Amino acid sequence: MRNGDAFDPNCPTRLVLDRIGDKWTVLVVLILKDGPLRFTQLRDRIGGITPKVLTQTLRAMARDGLVTRQIYPEVPPRVEYSLTPLGHSLQGPIRAITDWAEENVTEVMAAREAALAE
Amino acid sequence: MRNGDAFDPNCPTRLVLDRIGDKWTVLVVLILKDGPLRFTQLRDRIGGITPKVLTQTLRAMARDGLVTRQIYPEVPPRVEYSLTPLGHSLQGPIRAITDWAEENVTEVMAAREAALAE
Repeated sequence: MRNGDAFDPNCPTRLVLDRIGDKWTVLVVLILKDGPLRFTQLRDRIGGITPKVLTQTLRAMARDGLVTRQIYPEVPPRVEYSLTPLGHSLQGPIRAITDWAEENVTEVMAAREAALAE
Repeated sequence: MRNGDAFDPNCPTRLVLDRIGDKWTVLVVLILKDGPLRFTQLRDRIGGITPKVLTQTLRAMARDGLVTRQIYPEVPPRVEYSLTPLGHSLQGPIRAITDWAEENVTEVMAAREAALAE
């Protein structure tokens, strides 16, 4: 299996792209940039995410080595999520995507409005 | 409405991120890099995409000003899809993501295997 053909659904690079090319993963990486957060803090900051989808996203990111889950033996137990060094290394590429979005949002919105008016 | 808060589901930047943070959009941008292609050529190159999902992806990308659809009056009519200058401008940020995927695929796969072994 080659690593280089992202168009092949069995290619490892494509499998990785499937994960990081997911808007919830992108948002979790951005939001954990400054340090660990609890599940409810993540849920409250990411508008529009359901608890079920956030759970699935965090589980998949943990499986892929992007986040860790730390349990503190308190009453009730405190659970915090943080980025691993691998997860942190995604900040650069993700920043390139969000910078593009911020720079081009006006043009995209104008295209959408023109399409609606057709 | 602020442009800057990607965590707000009504924020324009988030709306743009929802579109470009989609693996099919990423693959279509990569595949149209070198010039226009017909629908069947796109479908054949992008392994694992259904015609329905490809149609939806191209329609959404056209609406957002990322691709254009050119119809040639031949018999049968030839339809080609190509990137707009806006669509081309996504190559840089998308390349940052695919480069990351290629560099880190071994680490991600090792994490997945370790998680499966638990």
